[in-house]
Amino acid sequence: MYMSILDSINEVGDIKKVDPADYKELAREIRSFLVNKVSVTGGHLASNLGVVELTMALHLFLDLPKDKLIFDVGHQSYTHKILTGRKDRFESLRTFGGLSGFPKTSESDCDAFNTGHSSTSVSVADGMVKARDLMGEDYRVVALIGDGALSGGMAYEALNNAGRFKSNMIIVLNDNKMSISENVGGMAAYLGKLRTNAKYTSVKSSLEKGLSSIPGIGDDLVSKIRNSKNTIKSLFVKGMFFENMGITYIGPIDGHNIPLMLEAFEAAGRSKNPVLVHVVTKKGKGYRPAEVNPRMFHGVDPFIKRTGRSKNKGSDKTYTDIFADAIIEEAAKNDKVVAVCAAMSDGTGLNRFRDYYPGRFFDVGISEEHAVTFAAGMAKSGLRPVVAIYSTFLQRSYDQILHDVALNNLPVVFAVDRAGIVGRDGDTHQGIFDLSFLTSIPGLTVMAPKNGAELKEALGFALNHNGPVAIRYPRHKATHKLEEFNAPIEYGKSEIIRPIAPVTVFAVGRMVKVMAEILARLEDETGKKTGLINVRFINPIDKETLMSAAAKSDHIITCEENVRRGGFGEAVSLILLENGYKGKFLDLSLPDEFLAHGSPNDIRDSIGFDPESLYNKLKSFISK
Amino acid sequence: MYMSILDSINEVGDIKKVDPADYKELAREIRSFLVNKVSVTGGHLASNLGVVELTMALHLFLDLPKDKLIFDVGHQSYTHKILTGRKDRFESLRTFGGLSGFPKTSESDCDAFNTGHSSTSVSVADGMVKARDLMGEDYRVVALIGDGALSGGMAYEALNNAGRFKSNMIIVLNDNKMSISENVGGMAAYLGKLRTNAKYTSVKSSLEKGLSSIPGIGDDLVSKIRNSKNTIKSLFVKGMFFENMGITYIGPIDGHNIPLMLEAFEAAGRSKNPVLVHVVTKKGKGYRPAEVNPRMFHGVDPFIKRTGRSKNKGSDKTYTDIFADAIIEEAAKNDKVVAVCAAMSDGTGLNRFRDYYPGRFFDVGISEEHAVTFAAGMAKSGLRPVVAIYSTFLQRSYDQILHDVALNNLPVVFAVDRAGIVGRDGDTHQGIFDLSFLTSIPGLTVMAPKNGAELKEALGFALNHNGPVAIRYPRHKATHKLEEFNAPIEYGKSEIIRPIAPVTVFAVGRMVKVMAEILARLEDETGKKTGLINVRFINPIDKETLMSAAAKSDHIITCEENVRRGGFGEAVSLILLENGYKGKFLDLSLPDEFLAHGSPNDIRDSIGFDPESLYNKLKSFISK
Repeated sequence: MYMSILDSINEVGDIKKVDPADYKELAREIRSFLVNKVSVTGGHLASNLGVVELTMALHLFLDLPKDKLIFDVGHQSYTHKILTGRKDRFESLRTFGGLSGFPKTSESDCDAFNTGHSSTSVSVADGMVKARDLMGEDYRVVALIGDGALSGGMAYEALNNAGRFKSNMIIVLNDNKMSISENVGGMAAYLGKLRTNAKYTSVKSSLEKGLSSIPGIGDDLVSKIRNSKNTIKSLFVKGMFFENMGITYIGPIDGHNIPLMLEAFEAAGRSKNPVLVHVVTKKGKGYRPAEVNPRMFHGVDPFIKRTGRSKNKGSDKTYTDIFADAIIEEAAKNDKVVAVCAAMSDGTGLNRFRDYYPGRFFDVGISEEHAVTFAAGMAKSGLRPVVAIYSTFLQRSYDQILHDVALNNLPVVFAVDRAGIVGRDGDTHQGIFDLSFLTSIPGLTVMAPKNGAELKEALGFALNHNGPVAIRYPRHKATHKLEEFNAPIEYGKSEIIRPIAPVTVFAVGRMVKVMAEILARLEDETGKKTGLINVRFINPIDKETLMSAAAKSDHIITCEENVRRGGFGEAVSLILLENGYKGKFLDLSLPDEFLAHGSPNDIRDSIGFDPESLYNKLKSFISK
Repeated sequence: MYMSILDSINEVGDIKKVDPADYKELAREIRSFLVNKVSVTGGHLASNLGVVELTMALHLFLDLPKDKLIFDVGHQSYTHKILTGRKDRFESLRTFGGLSGFPKTSESDCDAFNTGHSSTSVSVADGMVKARDLMGEDYRVVALIGDGALSGGMAYEALNNAGRFKSNMIIVLNDNKMSISENVGGMAAYLGKLRTNAKYTSVKSSLEKGLSSIPGIGDDLVSKIRNSKNTIKSLFVKGMFFENMGITYIGPIDGHNIPLMLEAFEAAGRSKNPVLVHVVTKKGKGYRPAEVNPRMFHGVDPFIKRTGRSKNKGSDKTYTDIFADAIIEEAAKNDKVVAVCAAMSDGTGLNRFRDYYPGRFFDVGISEEHAVTFAAGMAKSGLRPVVAIYSTFLQRSYDQILHDVALNNLPVVFAVDRAGIVGRDGDTHQGIFDLSFLTSIPGLTVMAPKNGAELKEALGFALNHNGPVAIRYPRHKATHKLEEFNAPIEYGKSEIIRPIAPVTVFAVGRMVKVMAEILARLEDETGKKTGLINVRFINPIDKETLMSAAAKSDHIITCEENVRRGGFGEAVSLILLENGYKGKFLDLSLPDEFLAHGSPNDIRDSIGFDPESLYNKLKSFISK
């Protein structure tokens, strides 16, 4: 029977037994494995295809799990998972209870840290290096960070601090010239220059050789120049940006050439200081559709391997699509409307806005803090910025929303995409905290539309409101349900779907539709009269409608896809209790815990937040 | 009658009428004014003394309020306030209803943006530049940022984005070699090199001249080198770090020489690209005690002008002092305990820890995001880090606490100093949101001690807990009240101060003492039996004690110095309501709004949160 080389890779360290002559073949097999598996399960593809050799080289260089390898973001860890005994679990990738698409310390002791958000790895590595040295231990610490993540301020903060360490630490810069979209900004341009000027040479610049070959100059001047302190150093040392921060720079190195990378890692490993190894890789490498369109193959649904086309076609619009349509329409009406995203033009739908209004579109790269305060500056000077950031990444901007936008009472609109249970990316990506962290910000209006049509209305409303507004909406296809309910949006007012009754539910966003179905069934089965309120505004709360329910209902229920603590249900309960409500109350929200990966419905099943469980909870509640 | 030059400065633009020969005298008068005023009111001194000439030069250069001048942080805006018609209000500095210590758009149209937190100015300027250009307007945008603030990642994100602007924008880097403490990290070292190597020369490097004077080389090689693309450019252009990011660098310039600065600003103003002007100033300049000890004169209480000694002596310890004592004691017992702060070694009390354990102390500069994840890395590798960050600045780390610490369930302790109403620094600095944003983070234990003795116990407890813990405590002198209550801390358990009674109050932190006094008076005056619970744990909530109160009390009250939305009161009300509590409930917390500057007691008076108002609210509540 034919044994592939990949068949011989069953646990960590097995790669060290592979004949170097077979590295190329192993890389090919890994790529083929990845395309096969991900075409079925979906997942992150282009980034993983890009780092096959890089991951192999790191595994050859390191002694795992003793050494610590920290993946920034972490969606590029598939080869690492293959090399650490998890090959056989790829069928379960990103399913509930299955293999996570990100590093998980609970999966393997070779996963040094749980990551998911960008630009954290150098800070973690800084901490591990300090701990290692203080505790007198001896292991390597390597942070693997992409050029996209390098635009995040946190990475700079960490580099700035690493610059004064007198201890070995290796930062591998995986430069694929992209984050999710094409990279932007001064740093990206700078890396581009490094790549262009240097053409994968060794550390010595060719300039030095060039100078010494000029007749009449020779080695004397070269050494004179070389010794003339720091200003001159930049002539001979590439990567002055990093060198200026106190970090030794090695590179650029071809990230598909294992021997060259090993040489660089060994050199870096001998340093007594932090070293940055600049490795250049090609995103999507080895799979033609992903090479041609790495953006499309960043995170994919299951696809047809031969063509690269998605299997989930479906013509229904997502909330993201509806947002994209709506902002283009608003921009046509009002030339002050501009849009900002943080390296997510595709994910947020703003790529279409960019096509219509390139001059009014700003992708600031992975820098959510800057994105928000940049928008604040624009708003202060008269524009109407819409900042589109996923719920989970907006956590990065909490202080900027509070201190730069809300405190200045600026009309910035936040399009909070991927709110609620997101699913397969798992605990690091669920959008289940935004109602908690956003509603405590004074003056920030927080809205959630019940369906796609209402999202469009909400955006128009927000762009005419004189103050900051956040609109949260989920990742999925937009529902057409309840489109017959289309009361014009009035500030701070909820919408009545089913009139207040002995049992009244106040539902947030997508839960309105879910509850409409549950309540219809409940009335059918129990004969009990039920009311349903589409909350619309989570801040401020519509007290009038709430008080009217308090007067007429003996059972009040809130329902939201957000954790319980700090959520809408708590806020409602306080108002009810202070105002003497004597009936029963039930808060249907998510448990106060992190939720693992899986399909959204599997996750909802696991925590009793699926329609059937909610129905049963409600039924049991009203029979009390 | 003798007219000083300062007497002639009464509104914006007046400085342009001053004879240049008198600039020095005016600077002297402004310094004298500042020392006189701040010695009486307290305030930020050293930073303001440092930027007198710099602010004058900016006012001479700019056309305010048409042009936009954005102060990073903003506590260095006193001279700006003097030059914009607010001289006569300095007696009221930082008092309730008086002049703010920070830029306030509500005070003057010359204040372009409200700031308070660090590293935001370049993002705001980026936004204003884009808005100006899109709207076809014509004004200058200048961000004034300190070298300390430059260690914040957000500033880097903004520079990274500015690097691709094709439009004028001026970033003035006020380099005083300090943030609040001495600056740290690679960037600080780099700026140091720029200062040392360049000695306030013009833009052309002396090296170029040097090379051409070498016999046999001459202009030919120089121009050859000069034209050899970007690598070579660094030979001739200082500030390559900024140049690499696409930002033109001018400097360093003597920040006490007005003509030199004007020349540099004019040159920067002619550029079609973003320009960074590197200005070197001396913190505390002109007032000897502040020059010698700028750290001590960063933010000061009223002091004796002649000696610089504080007027508020008092030997009582603050919560900060008690925390400092306690962590030193814990570190002696456990060599895994390390401490992290973000440019606040004095403010957090960790300067004393540093003296005892320099190798276990880490000041990461103004980079709160990095601070937290750096600690996460250390915790993951076996250390027990304590991160001391003020409540208001911890807002910057919300995502890092959630995603890097809590999701990894790491035993990091957060010492959340300056929680509650902070006072004179005003709305940008109040610590009134932490209970809201911290308690929704799964697995993060949140504690608040009732007095100084309990803070010490809480720290010891937290360092032995297997998971993250945040301890919030206020800015002020620690109370000795209620020291007779010292039940050992048990996880998730509150402490009973006065047994549960028909009226029972659940109080958080400093409100325990306040409520103890109020309840004693209430019992005296009304004869009504009252109970008082020292909550201790805001997350998790002690449901057992709460339920026992629900069974025995007909009036339950919560009291916390935090905004209402997302606070402890909401969480309690939900538990009570879901569990069928039928009594009355009152949430005594702060209104959901930003609170302006003033003494803490003046602020409390203004919102009815002073003891007398709380007493009246309680009395009226229980009579219902």
